[in-house]
Amino acid sequence: MDLASTIRDINDFPQKGIIFRDITTLLINPEAMKESINRIAEGLKDLDFDYILGAESRGFIFGVPVAYILNKGFIPVRKPGKLPAKTLKKEYALEYGTSTIEIHADALKPGDKVVIIDDLIATGGTSKAMAELAEEMGAEVVALSFLIELEGLKGRDVLKNYKVNSIIKY
Amino acid sequence: MDLASTIRDINDFPQKGIIFRDITTLLINPEAMKESINRIAEGLKDLDFDYILGAESRGFIFGVPVAYILNKGFIPVRKPGKLPAKTLKKEYALEYGTSTIEIHADALKPGDKVVIIDDLIATGGTSKAMAELAEEMGAEVVALSFLIELEGLKGRDVLKNYKVNSIIKY
Repeated sequence: MDLASTIRDINDFPQKGIIFRDITTLLINPEAMKESINRIAEGLKDLDFDYILGAESRGFIFGVPVAYILNKGFIPVRKPGKLPAKTLKKEYALEYGTSTIEIHADALKPGDKVVIIDDLIATGGTSKAMAELAEEMGAEVVALSFLIELEGLKGRDVLKNYKVNSIIKY
Repeated sequence: MDLASTIRDINDFPQKGIIFRDITTLLINPEAMKESINRIAEGLKDLDFDYILGAESRGFIFGVPVAYILNKGFIPVRKPGKLPAKTLKKEYALEYGTSTIEIHADALKPGDKVVIIDDLIATGGTSKAMAELAEEMGAEVVALSFLIELEGLKGRDVLKNYKVNSIIKY
């Protein structure tokens, strides 16, 4: 199935000059949603890892079903103030400004192997911050997997030390 | 499996006097996460419906994998300013303040049948707002399903016109 044909382009969102790749039209289509999840899972199934990390909010969309399929635990990475127990934080540069992410301090321990999943890689800032946070906790980042890659923004260069998968490239 | 034993209680979050039911300890456990998703799906499998609605952010966690299992489309309901195309909005009272939700204006049409999924029902405010938004678009709300129900907050009374499922009750 041509997954890209189910993604809607929205011009000038969230800022003038940006073409936003809207995945809501993919998610509302059961076949497209299912194939997206299956293809992300397929690309990870032969890797040895323990947990999938997904960042609030869109990282939850593909991270949880892929964890379900591959029998892995899911660890949410969230915006500040959302996780209820003790957290570790990291501030990083975004495509449009800066942001901070948090993870529960007891979610990972040295030697754990993780995969990071998100809907889209743009500049790679969020994913890099997640990978560094996991590594600061002693975990190993085995791979990162994205449904969509905006190749012109060169996020893969920022993640050049890691295995990076993507399904749909723009 | 005793799913409740995998949920962590955090006292005084997000405010003094509240016991927060932390599902991150359920999600990190592959068996508990899988059984949670399977049990939500099991409770919905005999119903006739088209789409699952899930609200940002935690509604995405269970909504997408259940949609995957039951071959339904998933429609995200988001905080203001996040959805890129034309939206409909609804403001509502929360357990701790007020909030506004948005849905894409073209996501539902008259006659569509939907199920609303969230991790937890407290006072039922978010779910009621989602149900009303769907109904204003002409859709029918076939059921609402929650992993956790805080029975003391009587959210079920607010949703008394609907079929409501929950797996873990406090």
